[in-house]
Amino acid sequence: MQEASLRHRPESEDCFVIDKNHLRLRFHTAKADVKKVIVHYLDSYYDLKTAQKQEMTKIGSGQVADYYMTTLELPLHRCQYTFEVVGQDGSHIIYGDRGIREYNDSNLYDYGQFFKVPYFHEIDMAKTPAWVKETVWYQIFPERFNNGDKNNDPVGTKPWNPADHPGREDYYGGDLQGVLDKLDYLQELGINGLYFCPIFKASSNHKYDTIDYLEIDPDFGDKKLFKKLVDEAHKRGMHVMLDAVFNHLGYQSKEWQDVVKHGRDSKYFDWFHINYLPVTPFKDPSKGEGMPPYDTFAFEPHMPKLNTANPEVQKYLLNIATYWAKEFHIDAWRLDVANEVDHHFWKKFHAALMAINPDFYIVGEVWHSSQPWLNGDEFTGVMNYPYTQQIEDHFLTGKISAEMLTQVLFDQLMLYRDCVNSGMLNMLDSHDTARLLTLADENQDKALNALAFELIQPGSPSIYYGTEMAMTGGNDPDCRKPMDWDKAGNVYWQKVHDLIEFRRKHAAVLSQSDIEFAVEDDLIEVKHGQLVAYFNTSEHEVKIDKQASVSNGYQNGILSPNGYILCE
Amino acid sequence: MQEASLRHRPESEDCFVIDKNHLRLRFHTAKADVKKVIVHYLDSYYDLKTAQKQEMTKIGSGQVADYYMTTLELPLHRCQYTFEVVGQDGSHIIYGDRGIREYNDSNLYDYGQFFKVPYFHEIDMAKTPAWVKETVWYQIFPERFNNGDKNNDPVGTKPWNPADHPGREDYYGGDLQGVLDKLDYLQELGINGLYFCPIFKASSNHKYDTIDYLEIDPDFGDKKLFKKLVDEAHKRGMHVMLDAVFNHLGYQSKEWQDVVKHGRDSKYFDWFHINYLPVTPFKDPSKGEGMPPYDTFAFEPHMPKLNTANPEVQKYLLNIATYWAKEFHIDAWRLDVANEVDHHFWKKFHAALMAINPDFYIVGEVWHSSQPWLNGDEFTGVMNYPYTQQIEDHFLTGKISAEMLTQVLFDQLMLYRDCVNSGMLNMLDSHDTARLLTLADENQDKALNALAFELIQPGSPSIYYGTEMAMTGGNDPDCRKPMDWDKAGNVYWQKVHDLIEFRRKHAAVLSQSDIEFAVEDDLIEVKHGQLVAYFNTSEHEVKIDKQASVSNGYQNGILSPNGYILCE
Repeated sequence: MQEASLRHRPESEDCFVIDKNHLRLRFHTAKADVKKVIVHYLDSYYDLKTAQKQEMTKIGSGQVADYYMTTLELPLHRCQYTFEVVGQDGSHIIYGDRGIREYNDSNLYDYGQFFKVPYFHEIDMAKTPAWVKETVWYQIFPERFNNGDKNNDPVGTKPWNPADHPGREDYYGGDLQGVLDKLDYLQELGINGLYFCPIFKASSNHKYDTIDYLEIDPDFGDKKLFKKLVDEAHKRGMHVMLDAVFNHLGYQSKEWQDVVKHGRDSKYFDWFHINYLPVTPFKDPSKGEGMPPYDTFAFEPHMPKLNTANPEVQKYLLNIATYWAKEFHIDAWRLDVANEVDHHFWKKFHAALMAINPDFYIVGEVWHSSQPWLNGDEFTGVMNYPYTQQIEDHFLTGKISAEMLTQVLFDQLMLYRDCVNSGMLNMLDSHDTARLLTLADENQDKALNALAFELIQPGSPSIYYGTEMAMTGGNDPDCRKPMDWDKAGNVYWQKVHDLIEFRRKHAAVLSQSDIEFAVEDDLIEVKHGQLVAYFNTSEHEVKIDKQASVSNGYQNGILSPNGYILCE
Repeated sequence: MQEASLRHRPESEDCFVIDKNHLRLRFHTAKADVKKVIVHYLDSYYDLKTAQKQEMTKIGSGQVADYYMTTLELPLHRCQYTFEVVGQDGSHIIYGDRGIREYNDSNLYDYGQFFKVPYFHEIDMAKTPAWVKETVWYQIFPERFNNGDKNNDPVGTKPWNPADHPGREDYYGGDLQGVLDKLDYLQELGINGLYFCPIFKASSNHKYDTIDYLEIDPDFGDKKLFKKLVDEAHKRGMHVMLDAVFNHLGYQSKEWQDVVKHGRDSKYFDWFHINYLPVTPFKDPSKGEGMPPYDTFAFEPHMPKLNTANPEVQKYLLNIATYWAKEFHIDAWRLDVANEVDHHFWKKFHAALMAINPDFYIVGEVWHSSQPWLNGDEFTGVMNYPYTQQIEDHFLTGKISAEMLTQVLFDQLMLYRDCVNSGMLNMLDSHDTARLLTLADENQDKALNALAFELIQPGSPSIYYGTEMAMTGGNDPDCRKPMDWDKAGNVYWQKVHDLIEFRRKHAAVLSQSDIEFAVEDDLIEVKHGQLVAYFNTSEHEVKIDKQASVSNGYQNGILSPNGYILCE
């Protein structure tokens, strides 16, 4: 047996309380290396000899690991447990808190070998609000979604032309009235969550360089209009998520301008990470210009990084975070560059929001694995790129095989607690990436196939505006074209609609992470309880006889390349 | 190569910031399975093709794993990195954030495969105060250390007789004046840290059933005396640690008595975890009596568990924690049953103490592996039983071999960040366990050998009162005999003194976790920088030619069984 491959981490994604009386455990082994894993468990103060045992279930395989799982019931809210492992080669060991021991009674009933969950504290549990699991999000880049009010169009606004390739500085006049006007449309599409890119006062068309977090950008509207929009969305059962940048301020913000002007004497000097004075000219180390005078987002001189360890900055940002939740009843924050802000701050942020609304949803923008943020006291979930980009690596670019896809996805799921997997924001494209259809080489079936696959994954799926219209676009700013309203209701649109409808109908099952993958006869099979789906990512037609509820490229028992079937 | 054995967890004990510009990484492999591990790294916003590389050093081996380490310099306080691994079998792979890939340029320079430390935040770093690393603690069980004031002796106090086997309810009159009178003695022994078992008002002789956390127990003295004691200790360069029980209250506390009396109507009802009413009679599930009316420590009806999720309880406990730090300038808290209190509370506790004194030391009583508490925002260290009990398993009981000991100790060190290892409280015995000499079958050389080994381990060592006097005693209450003052200065005492002196002299080196273990010719060799030590735990004499600075059982180049040599 590969003993160095055995793995279990107490109080982590391998060991988490799911309610006051239940504990879920996972155990990792090398693939096909182990015959069985048995957990011995009992209350922390019972005589070890009274331990109960329960065989763990093999729930799936990753690239190199097999994963075992079980759920234990502990009515006294405390648990100690240890693992008995039987290898395929007949070896028989105890894997416990102080290492590996030969299996025998004295080693099994060794107090030191029992892992502990000392008490099941509800306050420490990671939680995902029920509504998040039922939501299909729609990501709106406000400047490009819909122009509802010509009166607030910036000077030089270009005519609304979906065929344009927008320049970095272009304006098209999209605004909040435009969104309000389209709520019925979004409802018809099946959407029940609005995810807005930044709407606060800023200098650019994307509004990521915030000038004032407490004002709606006048290009988009005002607070009264925003309030109306939130209320109208809520009336339709839609939740509202705003995007905020707490990592850095905009160059034009009054705080940074004060530092530019007064240097050391500015009362905002300690709001930033200043390496030396004067702060101008900026030096970009990536261009070999030496150390920068101040820390920034990436090497963007116009985005000075905030010092979130400074209590004044914390107060300033927490006031913003709570203001929009309290006064406008927004339901969620999506946090830009969330990984570069300290954990200390996010814990305060989480506590402040939970005090207002325990069902608040917090999503961090993190492009890499995110365990440190997802222990229940910072974010509910993150933007799940390490998951969705691997879907693209198979469905769109063919960079990885179907077998490998199912393995790496399962590995990804095993990085997080089950409820965290339910709270992940899954998106195949966004304002930061090329559009799905472009990534799919403009093959509509291919794009739909990936979308269908995404929509049945655990988590909370999000659709980028225009995806339902089969819009194309390369990396930004090309992925930010004005919305192509003419295509609403066409065949592609209808297929996206049907996928959303299927997701919404079965959200309770699909949002959970007890998913099973298999690859057989060129098809990827996905099982979620009684639901089953098949995806043909091969170049051949495949014969398969199923009662499809939603499908594409499926006729007379033949599933075409890039076709899918979702079955109830 | 055993690919399922490869392991690295970002932002954890495998990846931690050690200062604003430096990051330490660890990597785990199966034992003797890998030829080399190379880390490729760069700033998060540099072109991947400009990544630098650094080969990692194999720093030690555990039971089944080899451990690799390296420290990276990142002047821009950000890092992305991935691992290249070459197996003994010639296999050559990338181990990255999205799994394992064949080694080639396109996989190496795949953005998704880079782990990230998005920004080096000092506020998130785990830290251990410098003074903790230089401290040798002395654990005082006040009722049994020294009777300095006959006037406060409880009714029925027994005569001070070190040969007694104390009963559970006995009193011997030890008090704070007794400690004050012996500060010179402790200084002579080499002690520079006083760790007090509880001194707050309580019902029992051990004072773990607190009645009033804001009063000194009258059996021990009063606040004025305690203040004097702390000041006198500080004058001698000694730090002071108090023991507090924040998990439960005593049955006689006014809060619990109010619940007993008024049930649901008590304003303290939500201070506890009450399952049903009335709270009496207590039912003990371990005796098959059914569910208990309220949650307790273990199944002790006289220790009702506090509901630390209740903000009132938090306020009450935080006031106590800060009161003794602010008003009496204590330097450290040792937290009883710390593992059963929620993390949420400990984070608030940590923040409150750090606001008063950033050099405050917080030690949790946790008997098992403790990663969840040791990420820099709860405890500095824990009572390091999983480490020290394995020392006993070899040195005292011979339950595990010398080879296994060195392996399991290295595995233990690899569970924590280096600075956390420096902050662990190491003790071979305490008021909760049988005494060292008793565990050593009253073989004094054996006890000294274990003590010498303990005193050169990473962490902050603690000596239980009377250990220097070669006192014996079984499990509590037998390990709580009145101090045997007659033996001060004898041969055994002098050897303990010399060990403490060696530890203090080399504390800067010995407290660090870059320790190397080897087992050869029946000797355990321990290296710490230029310091080296040998321990004979075999039954044979061993020839060894060294310049010993401190030793026992070493004459004419022969190290006797249970002998040790410490060399500078």
